[in-house]
Amino acid sequence: MSQLTAEKLRQARELLQHADFDVWLTFVRETDTAGDPALPLILDGGLVWHSALMVHKSGETVAVVGNYDADPIQHSGDWDKVVPYVQGISDPLLRELERLSPKKIGLNFSLDNSMADGLSHGMFLTLQNILGDRYELVSASKFVSALRSKKTAEEVGRIKHAIAETDTIFAMAPGWAKPGVSEREVYEHIQRYIDGKGYGYGWSREGNPIVNSGPDSMIGHGVPSPNITITPGHIFHIDLGIIVKEYSSDIQRCWYVADEGEKIPEDVQHAFNAVLGAIRAGFQALKPGVEGWTVDAAARSYLVSQGYEEYLHALGHQVGRKAHDGGALLGPKWERYGESPMMKIEVDHVYTIELGVILPGRGYLGLEEIAVVKESGAEWLSNPQESMPFL
Amino acid sequence: MSQLTAEKLRQARELLQHADFDVWLTFVRETDTAGDPALPLILDGGLVWHSALMVHKSGETVAVVGNYDADPIQHSGDWDKVVPYVQGISDPLLRELERLSPKKIGLNFSLDNSMADGLSHGMFLTLQNILGDRYELVSASKFVSALRSKKTAEEVGRIKHAIAETDTIFAMAPGWAKPGVSEREVYEHIQRYIDGKGYGYGWSREGNPIVNSGPDSMIGHGVPSPNITITPGHIFHIDLGIIVKEYSSDIQRCWYVADEGEKIPEDVQHAFNAVLGAIRAGFQALKPGVEGWTVDAAARSYLVSQGYEEYLHALGHQVGRKAHDGGALLGPKWERYGESPMMKIEVDHVYTIELGVILPGRGYLGLEEIAVVKESGAEWLSNPQESMPFL
Repeated sequence: MSQLTAEKLRQARELLQHADFDVWLTFVRETDTAGDPALPLILDGGLVWHSALMVHKSGETVAVVGNYDADPIQHSGDWDKVVPYVQGISDPLLRELERLSPKKIGLNFSLDNSMADGLSHGMFLTLQNILGDRYELVSASKFVSALRSKKTAEEVGRIKHAIAETDTIFAMAPGWAKPGVSEREVYEHIQRYIDGKGYGYGWSREGNPIVNSGPDSMIGHGVPSPNITITPGHIFHIDLGIIVKEYSSDIQRCWYVADEGEKIPEDVQHAFNAVLGAIRAGFQALKPGVEGWTVDAAARSYLVSQGYEEYLHALGHQVGRKAHDGGALLGPKWERYGESPMMKIEVDHVYTIELGVILPGRGYLGLEEIAVVKESGAEWLSNPQESMPFL
Repeated sequence: MSQLTAEKLRQARELLQHADFDVWLTFVRETDTAGDPALPLILDGGLVWHSALMVHKSGETVAVVGNYDADPIQHSGDWDKVVPYVQGISDPLLRELERLSPKKIGLNFSLDNSMADGLSHGMFLTLQNILGDRYELVSASKFVSALRSKKTAEEVGRIKHAIAETDTIFAMAPGWAKPGVSEREVYEHIQRYIDGKGYGYGWSREGNPIVNSGPDSMIGHGVPSPNITITPGHIFHIDLGIIVKEYSSDIQRCWYVADEGEKIPEDVQHAFNAVLGAIRAGFQALKPGVEGWTVDAAARSYLVSQGYEEYLHALGHQVGRKAHDGGALLGPKWERYGESPMMKIEVDHVYTIELGVILPGRGYLGLEEIAVVKESGAEWLSNPQESMPFL
């Protein structure tokens, strides 16, 4: 794991050269319950007492932590100076900051990116109490978003590995998903496999995988039903994100439940083509320098041009340690997405491209793929679904 | 699970009668990564978009959530009114608050209790942007701490269950922990058992269990060493917290590694008696109405009276969904503990009582028990270790 934290701290030092603050300060306590999503990027394991992890523009890294937390940090080798304390963090923190003498300190709070918003309001107030008006406290949102979003080679490799394991599960799904079997049973089969392998869940286990069978299924983040069974003439759909070695996948696949000898109905084929075409339109539009909403618009307008309703979500989000990894979003300019659709796509960002249509009498037909952004444009990390298999 | 959320929401309505605000508002987004520790008390599962969960003094419960998150909340039956939105939370949230017309709104931020500090600073700023100066925003820290700390019968039952499973692991430990075996090997045996059972970890898996063998071991929150092996004449010590059905244990046990035919050395027995006596002194002092630091002082002064150095941590913390469950603390008045040692012990609080001594040439001798507070005083939930077994 320490290869990763070393890689990310190196990246942090580089990104800090372009930041409008002099020290990046991650201020946390009891991180097992009140975790800052930025912390695992730069530190393995948890911290119990008030802890200040600082990276200075000069490249120096300093950790001020409780005495029981100091040993693992010292052993990691990632931190130039580890300052343990027993009774309180105020004095050692003030001393270290005086030495580093920053003008502005960047903190992990953000209106638009939950993954750059790990500082709690109570901890912000605590910091204000300790520091008084000695330093200017500013948002490190852009910096943290960039640090998280720009995936290193190791990170991309891990995401690919999680996708490969997800493909394995999708390849087994037809063995579990037979006509007459309930959504819930398929969900349980998949979870047993995931748990048996010791993998994690890209979003909460309760609603992962999402399994939708036919038109009566609950679309969205609900729990698969024990009362809805797989039925010929319907569409069967799974949305699954697993975490393998700390990195997540997030993939949707769908199948047509055919009667014996039945061919794929025209309305299903037409909808599949529209969804696939929209995914491809989004993929074509995904390149460095453009704003996320333009990528969403490309897919959205294609889908509408094919006679289907707009999807009620963003075309894509970043993927990393979680399925929803924050930062720039391939989404429409809706209030709930804040500034994230206006953020620029950059090289080494990893995005989902996902959308679907509700087909009357058939169910939800949705696809989700994953791509990495390179200089020359997007490259698939997943193996895109290009036809509608039978179940 | 919904029995628990219904129980806790009932308790929230009662506690709200004594609060100095009219609406308790839990304001969250992307809760799988940016979770508010108060959320699982009142809701099963996660929320993706900006979500406002409100309990009004009248008893009414209102959830304003993104459209894809609405179904499971409606199905839970816990919420009187569920308001789904598509584009943004501002309008529906303002509408619902106008209807409820609170003067003060209690929010989840806290200087002293990380478990009552789930509101991020970015989300606080977002709320300020939406609400302007229409309402007074105050800390709900005392309320959330009380809601979390006062365990319902179901919650106490679950903690007892987690303790029983922990006892099972401790009973198996001597089968793994033989002279010549490393700390790390014992740790791996225990983790394999926990993972096989599908249990969770009361604190981060990386440092759980803590395993200490002899005087060279790293005391604190570090990772057990592959290079330190169990050796006669040393003390062997484990600190373990597991989560079973969402509730945690947190127990320490220790053993003396005896040579064949050896009796327990006098210095070890003396230290064990001192630690046990201090645990008992704390237990005696633990009753409703007293402040936490007095309980710590009873144990601390007893230990010192027996000729040992003070332990460098608090005597005890609350246990619940996590091993460190926040709120009032049985701790000394040190800066790093903030106001928590001055908070009053109340009926239905559940605490650890834990301490140890470093015995020169022997290692770390520590015990940790769990007790619930009742009208008449403390009652053990764990089965206290009262002698020093041989390994």
